[in-house]
Amino acid sequence: MDDHIAAVPLEKAYRLINHGPTVLVSAQHEGVTDVMAAAWACALDFSPPKVTVVLDKITRTRGLVEHSGVFVIQVPTVGQLKLTSDVGSMSLFDTADKLAQCGVELFSLPGHDLPFVAGCSAWLACKLLHEPHNQTTYDLFIGEVVGAWADTRVFRDGHWHFETASPDLRSLHYIAGGHFYAIGEALSVDPKDAT
Amino acid sequence: MDDHIAAVPLEKAYRLINHGPTVLVSAQHEGVTDVMAAAWACALDFSPPKVTVVLDKITRTRGLVEHSGVFVIQVPTVGQLKLTSDVGSMSLFDTADKLAQCGVELFSLPGHDLPFVAGCSAWLACKLLHEPHNQTTYDLFIGEVVGAWADTRVFRDGHWHFETASPDLRSLHYIAGGHFYAIGEALSVDPKDAT
Repeated sequence: MDDHIAAVPLEKAYRLINHGPTVLVSAQHEGVTDVMAAAWACALDFSPPKVTVVLDKITRTRGLVEHSGVFVIQVPTVGQLKLTSDVGSMSLFDTADKLAQCGVELFSLPGHDLPFVAGCSAWLACKLLHEPHNQTTYDLFIGEVVGAWADTRVFRDGHWHFETASPDLRSLHYIAGGHFYAIGEALSVDPKDAT
Repeated sequence: MDDHIAAVPLEKAYRLINHGPTVLVSAQHEGVTDVMAAAWACALDFSPPKVTVVLDKITRTRGLVEHSGVFVIQVPTVGQLKLTSDVGSMSLFDTADKLAQCGVELFSLPGHDLPFVAGCSAWLACKLLHEPHNQTTYDLFIGEVVGAWADTRVFRDGHWHFETASPDLRSLHYIAGGHFYAIGEALSVDPKDAT
């Protein structure tokens, strides 16, 4: 396990995707592993933490999630801009060596038989909560987060530190047609006294 | 209608929230209007465009959405940082003049009997798709987008232009505890030939 990777308490796992980054979704089943990009992933609950992610029927990853019942949501970085775009535009159905062509390196984390993508800034190990109606009608999958980790150079003590970390570690936010934005300036406000 | 506001074609409406901004959700019913902040909103489909949004049972907005069957998802700006934090921390259940205290100004758009929040950069008029299981179990609401508009100073020709617009028009991305990030630098990549 990389020196920079540390576990994140589950009750703070939602913070890893609360700012709406484009994520990578990875899964494996019977020796097949795929990684895709997803702009449509979102926190759903704090405790236990849950997430939603849209997995189109044309993706190979979707079948792997359906069959294995587990998947990883991870937050790619500005340094992985091309990798993120490439895994989002190529399909394992057409290109058997997609992951090698895209430069994806996988690693393991203790206690989870899942393919984690190296070089990301945060990882959420998820267990699929079967909701056949949502999956069939909306391509909408719900996962319970059962493990969370982050790169301590950019997320520690329960907070992102994009403003002081390397710009290469910023999160990516996809629009369309190869156009992304990196996350930007930190802003703080004192919450109003709710009286 | 403000000179800077223009309709966005429905097939491009997803782009208004594809980068994962924190949004404001507004709704009205029988003379009651509320506006809340939501970090957990996400695109769900392209055509017809759909969105998901998590509306907690403690919010007044949720009941207004359930009863009226319609709501607005809008994208607040850096210039609305305090307003966004304030509408997210105060409740109309406790504070009858919440909207006035938060400095919310509402306006109308033709053909939609909905409360649009002035000063935002984009607006999605949504029709609730009733999914009682999702609403009850997960606080998860699905809306079909039936109208979309944007401030042409920062979104036009189907694309955001944060990099050339006023920094005050950038989107907000909430983490926790009053900590937000603004959207940042534009990045582009040529999609890989998917062969």
